[in-house]
Amino acid sequence: MSTRRIRLNAFDMSCAGHLSPGLWRHPDDQSHRYADLDYWTELAQLLERGKFDSLFLADVLGVYDVFEDSRDAAVQQAVQVPVQDPLLTVSAMSAVTEHLGFGVTVSLTYEQPYALARKLTTLDHLTKGRVAWNIVTSYLESAARNLGLTNQISHDERYDIADEFLEVCYKLWESSWAEDAVVHDRERGIYVDPTKVRDIDHDGKYFRVPGNFLCAPSPQRTPVLYQAGASKRGQEFAARHAEAIFIMGTRTEVLRPIIDNIRRQVAEQGRDPYDVKIFALATVVTGDTDADARAKLKSYQEHISFEGALALYGGWSGIDFSAYAPDQPLKLLHTDAIQSAVEAFSKADPWREWTPQAIAEWVGIGGLGPVIVGSPTTVADELERWVDEADVDGFNLAYAVTPGTFVDLVELVVPELQRRGRVWTEYEGSTLRETIYGPGVRRLPDNHPGAKYRTE
Amino acid sequence: MSTRRIRLNAFDMSCAGHLSPGLWRHPDDQSHRYADLDYWTELAQLLERGKFDSLFLADVLGVYDVFEDSRDAAVQQAVQVPVQDPLLTVSAMSAVTEHLGFGVTVSLTYEQPYALARKLTTLDHLTKGRVAWNIVTSYLESAARNLGLTNQISHDERYDIADEFLEVCYKLWESSWAEDAVVHDRERGIYVDPTKVRDIDHDGKYFRVPGNFLCAPSPQRTPVLYQAGASKRGQEFAARHAEAIFIMGTRTEVLRPIIDNIRRQVAEQGRDPYDVKIFALATVVTGDTDADARAKLKSYQEHISFEGALALYGGWSGIDFSAYAPDQPLKLLHTDAIQSAVEAFSKADPWREWTPQAIAEWVGIGGLGPVIVGSPTTVADELERWVDEADVDGFNLAYAVTPGTFVDLVELVVPELQRRGRVWTEYEGSTLRETIYGPGVRRLPDNHPGAKYRTE
Repeated sequence: MSTRRIRLNAFDMSCAGHLSPGLWRHPDDQSHRYADLDYWTELAQLLERGKFDSLFLADVLGVYDVFEDSRDAAVQQAVQVPVQDPLLTVSAMSAVTEHLGFGVTVSLTYEQPYALARKLTTLDHLTKGRVAWNIVTSYLESAARNLGLTNQISHDERYDIADEFLEVCYKLWESSWAEDAVVHDRERGIYVDPTKVRDIDHDGKYFRVPGNFLCAPSPQRTPVLYQAGASKRGQEFAARHAEAIFIMGTRTEVLRPIIDNIRRQVAEQGRDPYDVKIFALATVVTGDTDADARAKLKSYQEHISFEGALALYGGWSGIDFSAYAPDQPLKLLHTDAIQSAVEAFSKADPWREWTPQAIAEWVGIGGLGPVIVGSPTTVADELERWVDEADVDGFNLAYAVTPGTFVDLVELVVPELQRRGRVWTEYEGSTLRETIYGPGVRRLPDNHPGAKYRTE
Repeated sequence: MSTRRIRLNAFDMSCAGHLSPGLWRHPDDQSHRYADLDYWTELAQLLERGKFDSLFLADVLGVYDVFEDSRDAAVQQAVQVPVQDPLLTVSAMSAVTEHLGFGVTVSLTYEQPYALARKLTTLDHLTKGRVAWNIVTSYLESAARNLGLTNQISHDERYDIADEFLEVCYKLWESSWAEDAVVHDRERGIYVDPTKVRDIDHDGKYFRVPGNFLCAPSPQRTPVLYQAGASKRGQEFAARHAEAIFIMGTRTEVLRPIIDNIRRQVAEQGRDPYDVKIFALATVVTGDTDADARAKLKSYQEHISFEGALALYGGWSGIDFSAYAPDQPLKLLHTDAIQSAVEAFSKADPWREWTPQAIAEWVGIGGLGPVIVGSPTTVADELERWVDEADVDGFNLAYAVTPGTFVDLVELVVPELQRRGRVWTEYEGSTLRETIYGPGVRRLPDNHPGAKYRTE
């Protein structure tokens, strides 16, 4: 067995219920503190103590309104609403940590590259090189309606726009300012050498950006790029641009061919297939013993909201399960969307009778990832098995309750994985990209498509 | 003589030279630390020690490229470039302070109200009600070109858009969520009462926002509204919406009629004329004695950059003074723009021979506001005179060098003003709006136009 390092990433969102609808009712849950800075600074310090690579902040710009053709279930159960902007907590978390990375989700559908590039560079400066951008193209109709689009842009065109958006960003980040443009030479009276700042002259199909970037080069220049696209076009985009890819799947046998395919696509782009770190969504429920952990899981399961879970899944899938009885066997229903959902769930558990209730139970803790339950030894065994069998680089760890799930991970599971040499005991390097690629690698690797825009 | 409280506000920007071009070369200046969080957290703590109302962060989204028809002078002298996003430092500053307000500049020309309202509400939650939005409509062509506008929108139409933008924001902030919508009732399983969240159904000339707001009500709901528009249309906008107005003028006799006019316009909107707090731009240079202060000023003046100052003024006025000799008397030049500039400067000092060099010296410390120089007693006398003669509520204090200018203010001038009963010795209330209107007033006053959108 290899002793490949297992990378840990925490998955959270500025809302009261990220991927555990209804669990805000659990007495141990503090997710309602999402609007308090203390929640975030304490979480960041906890994760750094557990040597996590980064905290990944999800986001949506709309509400989940498919279930019962209404947002009421989502609102009542606080299913990713109310939801706040993920970028604005980062500087406070950065001020109390030294190594933890911060992955922020920003949809490029509603941003201009000139302004977004500045926001991310600002964060990269303020965090001293610890920022990642999770690149998303928005999927919610409810967001599009409120943000000036009369219709959602088609899925594939969203990725065409995204490719050009990235091109503009690379030009701003990598080519507009030479590395030695800022001299701050008090004697000669030159703060910036103007011959080393150039216009990017971008004139494309979707964007026109003639000028120079507004920011001086930050420690990483291009922030670390995260992506989570599951579609064919999304994977193609990720294989080209992403440095970390976030996937979902419930069994290693299901994930392995998907991961092999991603690595092959990455190689086809001229990159090292292992230059992309792949994180599998998972939720860990642990306690001192297997029995303790199972008891904890049971108490979590009792707090799942049926309506909340189906509101969440409805937003992702477009399927409104409110039309069916909770115990209706779904394989009997012959709509394409439902059959494709049943097919996906059957991969997770082929022996289960999939009903709306079963889906709610499945989705209700940790969304579409596995729930890994047991003592620290049991959990560590399972995480090792995943890495070895599925060829993932680590886990994107959602919470059942927060910060409890993360406290359990840091206090119980991380020490066990450290004893096994699977989780590092100290960070190497100081920027997030060094955490990913090793000390000294603060910039995009040379074989990354963004690197070709460098002028030096 | 009244003992009306004098309000202090600090004026800064996420860049290396805000309103003192060239002074980055001064040995006492640390403005190059603008990209370090420590600079901001230390400054916030300093200002809170000095009982400042707020820290006001300016912003631009383009470069100053009028002087020599080039950005080179601005870039070389770091005249508001490089420049970073002002919102992203706020949470770190908020975490180390309890009372200081944070005024952030965001141009609505390049934002969607649905997304911007969420950003500001997020900050209002994270700061526990200490955020102000400085509403601007962008003036730089260089910004418009890079942000997807082929032409700058005309000045007056920018304010029409701004009026509707605010209307959308008021609906989101004041009417979409009832005050008691969030119940977080674990027993009944209701986090948010969905009957208390409503769609805003906005369908206007510039914006269409049918849905509900994404955030729960923040402590202030609508952030405190700052405005600095000097034009007729800008003042009309400010009289309607602003709770604090920032003005520039170099002599009390010049400012007094402008301020009287603002208060009259505010009253015409059905508001109390003193519900709008008026802050005059000023830069204070102080030392233990008048002679010390004058020596300090001299050393600052020696570091002004001629090119940097004219790059800055060129960006504001559109006038390129590089075509003239530094000692060219401007009153001899008969272009409309230059005569209007000479007229403005002659109000500041009618006896001075205005030349490009004289303008650079004037603008080079503190932009278009006065420089108030002397011992703490002298400065306090002068600030009191301004308040009494010009009817301003306080000062928007720029720096010559940072944090030195602010340290001098807090250590020397504030104690003197406190002895005179002019600066308070403790904050009252906890939100920024309470700092402005008094304890208990956390929401827009009833006579503010935003208040009419309240549904309760």
